[in-house]
Amino acid sequence: MSGLFITMEGTDGSGKSTQLNLLSQYLEKKGFNIVFVREPGGTKIGEKIRDIILDINNKKMDYMTEAFLYASSRSQLVNEIIAPELKKGSIVICDRFVDSSIVYQGIARNIGIDVVKKINNIATGGLTPDITFFLDLSPQEAIKRKIQQKELDRLESEKDYFYKKVYDGYKLLISQNSERIKVIDATQSIENIHKNIVNYIESIFF
Amino acid sequence: MSGLFITMEGTDGSGKSTQLNLLSQYLEKKGFNIVFVREPGGTKIGEKIRDIILDINNKKMDYMTEAFLYASSRSQLVNEIIAPELKKGSIVICDRFVDSSIVYQGIARNIGIDVVKKINNIATGGLTPDITFFLDLSPQEAIKRKIQQKELDRLESEKDYFYKKVYDGYKLLISQNSERIKVIDATQSIENIHKNIVNYIESIFF
Repeated sequence: MSGLFITMEGTDGSGKSTQLNLLSQYLEKKGFNIVFVREPGGTKIGEKIRDIILDINNKKMDYMTEAFLYASSRSQLVNEIIAPELKKGSIVICDRFVDSSIVYQGIARNIGIDVVKKINNIATGGLTPDITFFLDLSPQEAIKRKIQQKELDRLESEKDYFYKKVYDGYKLLISQNSERIKVIDATQSIENIHKNIVNYIESIFF
Repeated sequence: MSGLFITMEGTDGSGKSTQLNLLSQYLEKKGFNIVFVREPGGTKIGEKIRDIILDINNKKMDYMTEAFLYASSRSQLVNEIIAPELKKGSIVICDRFVDSSIVYQGIARNIGIDVVKKINNIATGGLTPDITFFLDLSPQEAIKRKIQQKELDRLESEKDYFYKKVYDGYKLLISQNSERIKVIDATQSIENIHKNIVNYIESIFF
C-alpha cells in the first residue's frame, strides 16, 4: 500500500468533526487525493448497518452483536474503499476506526480487549492506521461542553461513569501504541489544534 | 444448560422447512416447551440484519462483511433467545446454525473454515447443538427439484458449481463431526424422513 491512512479518535465533544474537516481541506489544497470516511458507515451497506446500530428502538441489542455489527461495517469499508484507495496512493482520513471499538466495546462495555482485537483483525485484514490523532479532553471538560451545548439536560451518573471509562480506555490504548497515536490537547483553540495536527503530519510524512 | 438444542442443515430444496415444522409439532404434542427459530434472523434485531444480508441491492457486499453480519444476527439470537430458553429447559429447534456459516461462507465462499469458526465461537460463546440433522440430497437431485418447481429458469453453471461446493462442504463437516451430525437420506418420503428424525431423537434423549 502506497497511500497514507490517518484516523482520528476522541470522546464525544472533543472537536473531532471540526478538525477532520480542516485537515481534509488543508491536504486537498496541497494537491493530495483525499478520501474522507466515517465509522460506522462510509459505504452504502455500512450506512444500513449504522442505522441498525444507532436505532434507539434496538434496546435489546447485545454488546457482542453490537461489536460484530461494527466489525461488519468496518470490513465493508476497508474492502470497498480504504484498501483500494490506499493502493491508488490516496490519503484516507477516517473518523474513528478499530481503536474506538477497543475502547467503547472492549473496555467501556467490558466485552474484552482481546476479543475485539481478534474480531477486528479479521475484519480489517490487519490494516492499521499510519497515524492516529487522539483529541485529548478530560471527561469533566467533555461533560461541561455538552452542558453548554444543552445537549445534555439530565446528567445521569451512569453517563458520567461511561465517559470516564472511555477516557481511561483511550489512555490505556495510547500507552500501548505510543508510536502510532499522537495525543493532541483538545482544550486549545481550533486553530492551534489544527496547526499541531498539520505540523505533526508534515514532520513525519512529507 | 438443561434444555435440548436441535439444529437442521441441508442445501436448498432438501425439505428442511417441512421437516422442521413436523418435528416441532411432534415434540409440542409430546408436551415439551418448543422454541423454533430461524437463521439469519429470529429476533427483531436479527431480522433487520437479515434484511441487509438478503437485499439484492447490496451486490457489493464483501464476503467477510456477510460472515460478520451472520455472526451478529447469531450472537443476538443466542443471547436473547437460545441461551435463556435452554436454561429454562426448553427444546430449541433452529433452522441452520454455525454449520451453515462454515459451509457457505467458510468453504463455498472460500473465506476459510478457521476464520468462520473463530468468529462464531465468539458469537455463540461456544454453544454447540446437542444434535444436528443433515438432510442429504445430492446436488443433482437438488437442482432437479428446483427445476420441477420452476424456481430455476436459467440454470447457470456457476450455480451448479456452488451447489456442489456447498454439498461437498457439508460432507467434510460431517466427517469431522460424525457424533453430532446425523445424516438423513432426503430422497425418502416426507413421512419416512420425519420418522427417522423422531426415532433418532427418542433413542438418544428420551
